Amino acid sequence: MAVLLSTKPAAMALWRDALLAVDPALEIRMFPEAGDPAEIEAAVVWTAHDMAELRRYPNLKLIVSMGAGVDHLLRPPGPPPGIPVARLVDRMLTSQMGEWVLLNVLRFHRQDAEYRAQQRDRIWLELPAPVTGETPVGFLGLGELGLHAAGLLRSLGFPVLGWSRRPKQVEGVETFHGAEGLMAMAARSRMLVCLLPLTPETRGIVDARLLGALPRGAWLINGARGGHVVDADLLAALESGQLAGAALDVFQPEPLPPEHPYWAHPAVVMTPHAASITIPASAAPQVVANLHRARAGQPLLNLVDFSAGY
Amino acid sequence: MAVLLSTKPAAMALWRDALLAVDPALEIRMFPEAGDPAEIEAAVVWTAHDMAELRRYPNLKLIVSMGAGVDHLLRPPGPPPGIPVARLVDRMLTSQMGEWVLLNVLRFHRQDAEYRAQQRDRIWLELPAPVTGETPVGFLGLGELGLHAAGLLRSLGFPVLGWSRRPKQVEGVETFHGAEGLMAMAARSRMLVCLLPLTPETRGIVDARLLGALPRGAWLINGARGGHVVDADLLAALESGQLAGAALDVFQPEPLPPEHPYWAHPAVVMTPHAASITIPASAAPQVVANLHRARAGQPLLNLVDFSAGY
Ligand SMILES: NC(=O)c1ccc[n+]([C@@H]2O[C@H](COP(=O)([O-])OP(=O)(O)OC[C@H]3O[C@@H](n4cnc5c(N)ncnc54)[C@H](OP(=O)(O)O)[C@@H]3O)[C@@H](O)[C@H]2O)c1
Ligand SMILES: NC(=O)c1ccc[n+]([C@@H]2O[C@H](COP(=O)([O-])OP(=O)(O)OC[C@H]3O[C@@H](n4cnc5c(N)ncnc54)[C@H](OP(=O)(O)O)[C@@H]3O)[C@@H](O)[C@H]2O)c1
Repeated sequence: MAVLLSTKPAAMALWRDALLAVDPALEIRMFPEAGDPAEIEAAVVWTAHDMAELRRYPNLKLIVSMGAGVDHLLRPPGPPPGIPVARLVDRMLTSQMGEWVLLNVLRFHRQDAEYRAQQRDRIWLELPAPVTGETPVGFLGLGELGLHAAGLLRSLGFPVLGWSRRPKQVEGVETFHGAEGLMAMAARSRMLVCLLPLTPETRGIVDARLLGALPRGAWLINGARGGHVVDADLLAALESGQLAGAALDVFQPEPLPPEHPYWAHPAVVMTPHAASITIPASAAPQVVANLHRARAGQPLLNLVDFSAGY
Repeated sequence: MAVLLSTKPAAMALWRDALLAVDPALEIRMFPEAGDPAEIEAAVVWTAHDMAELRRYPNLKLIVSMGAGVDHLLRPPGPPPGIPVARLVDRMLTSQMGEWVLLNVLRFHRQDAEYRAQQRDRIWLELPAPVTGETPVGFLGLGELGLHAAGLLRSLGFPVLGWSRRPKQVEGVETFHGAEGLMAMAARSRMLVCLLPLTPETRGIVDARLLGALPRGAWLINGARGGHVVDADLLAALESGQLAGAALDVFQPEPLPPEHPYWAHPAVVMTPHAASITIPASAAPQVVANLHRARAGQPLLNLVDFSAGY
C-alpha cells in the first residue's frame, strides 16, 4: 500500500522526506506518478489537488490536507463520498499565524504608518499614544488559530472579544455567537481579526454591514481566506475613512492580479498568503499517526466535519 | 510644604492633576513659579531640568525622575549632594516598551521590509520563512524593561539571551555578564535589543567590536539611549551588510537633526523617542508614595544607585 503526495513541485521532496523520517516503511508516490491506483491508501494533498482525480483510487481510506483550511477540498465535486478528510492542526502553523496577527495589530496600534511617513519627511514628533487597555480586538473565529492569537493579545493587555459558531467560554475573552453577537462584537472592536474557515456561512462575511458596524477608524486583519471579504465593500470603507487600514494575507483570486487596487492602496498592508506556512517536518507526525489510525480502524485526528463545512 | 513640577508645558497640567488625584492635599508648584524656595520638599522633574537649579531649595528631600532613565540627571553637576533620586518603574512604561520591541522583532523576523517592497512592485512571492525557534534574541540589560520584553519573546518561542551587570538567573533566559559574556552573547544573537541605562560603562557599547561579533546579517533594536550607539560604527555595519537593519527610538542628539543619515537610510526604522511614554496617571501613585515615605523617613522606592550610575 502507498501514500500519494500532491503539492507544489518545490515542496514535494520535503514532504516525502518528512513522512519517511517518521515512518521509513511508508511507500510514497509523488503525483502524477501514482503507480497502481489500487495501491493508494491515503492522499496527502495541497489545496490545488483536483478532488475528482481522487475518485480513481478504489482503496483510498484517508485524505489529508497539507494546510489548516479545507475549503478548496470541500467545494464541488468534493472528496470521494465516504472518505474522511483530516486537516492540519500544527504548533508551527499556529505560532506563525500568531506572529503575523501580532505584527499587524502592533503595526496599527503603534501608529507605524504615521511614524514611517514622519521618518520619510524627517519630522520629529511624538504622537499621542493609544492605550492598549482601551483598544479592544475582536476575533472572527476562536479555533486553533484564533484562540492562540487571542491569548497573545490578552497577555499584552488588549481587551479581547471573540465570535464562534457555537457558544464558547474562553478565560479572559468576551465571547459572542450568532448574527446578533457578530454585530454586538463589531460595535466594540477597534481591530477585527478574521481567522474563520471559509464555508457557505462565512463567505463574504466581511461586507459593508459588518465593516459599518465597527467603530469609525477601525482596522481589519484578515489571515483566513480572501473569500471572507467583499473587496468592493472593504475598498469603500477604506475610502470613506470608516476603516483606517487593513492587513491582508489572503485574496480572491491568488495570486492577486497585478491590476488589483489593493497592491497600491496606501492603507493596505499585504503579504502573499504567507502568514503561516506549513512546515512538513512539523506536520508529518500527525499525518503518519492518522495513517496508522486509518489502517487500524481507530478514530482519526483533526477530522473535517462535512456538515459544519470545516 | 510643596512639590515642584518641571516638565514640558504640554505635560505640566497632566502631572499636576494626576498627583492631586492621588493626594488632594498636595501643594503643587509649576516651574518656574516655584514660590518660596524653602517650601519645596520634592522636585518631580523631566530629564531636561537643570540640576544646578535644584540647589536653590534648602529643604529638598527627594528628586523624582519622570522617566525610567536618569542619565540626564546624573551627569555633572548632578543632583544636590545627599538628596536621593527616584526613577519610575511603571507597568505602562514597561508594557509599552514591550510592544515596541515586539513590533520591531516581528517586523524583522517576518521579513516585513521585503514584503513591503514586493507589494510596492506588485510581486506575489512567498519568501522562505526564518524559524522562530532558531532565531535567538540577545538583550543588553535585564532590568524592568529588558526582563519584560524578554518574557514576551520567550512566550513566542524565540530563544532568549540576556546580559546584565551582575550575574543573574532568569528562567528560560540564557544569561551572561562581564566583557567576555558580552561577546559570547553577541556571537549567538540574530537580533540584539538594547535596554541598558546610559552610564559611563555603557556609553558607546554598541560599537564596531560588538556589532562585528554578531552573526552576519543580524538586526539591532535600540530602545535605551542614543549614547549607547556609536553612530558611525552602526552606519558602517549597515553599509557592509554585517547588520541587516536597525530599529532606533533614541538618538544623539534629540531631536535628531534633519541632515542625519539615519532618516533616509533604507535599513533604519525610526521612532522619535516614543517607544515608551510616561503616562502621569499611571506613574503618580508611586511618586506620591515616595513623597509620603520621604516625609516619614521611610525607605524610598525605585532609588537610583549613584555608585552604579542607574
Ligand atoms: N493565511 C494563512 O496562511 C492561513 C494558514 C492557516 C489557516 N488559515 C485559515 O484559517 C482558518 C482557521 O483555521 P483554524 O485552524 O483556527 O480553524 P478551526 O480550529 O476550525 O476554527 C474555526 C473557528 O471559526 C469558527 N466558525 C466556523 N464557522 C463559523 C460560523 N459560521 N460562524 C461563526 N464562527 C464560525 C469556529 O467556531 P466553533 O468554535 O464553534 O467551531 C471556530 O471557532 C482556516 O480555515 C484557514 O482558512 C490561513
Ligand atoms: N525609549 C524610551 O522611550 C525609553 C523609556 C524608558 C526607559 N528607557 C531606557 O531604558 C533603560 C532601562 O530601563 P530599565 O527600567 O529596564 O532599567 P533597570 O531596571 O535599571 O535595568 C537596567 C539593566 O541594565 C543592566 N546594566 C546596567 N549597567 C550595566 C553594565 N555596565 N553592564 C551590563 N549590564 C548593565 C542592569 O544590570 P543588573 O541587573 O545587574 O542591575 C539591568 O539588568 C533606561 O535607563 C532608559 O535609558 C527608554
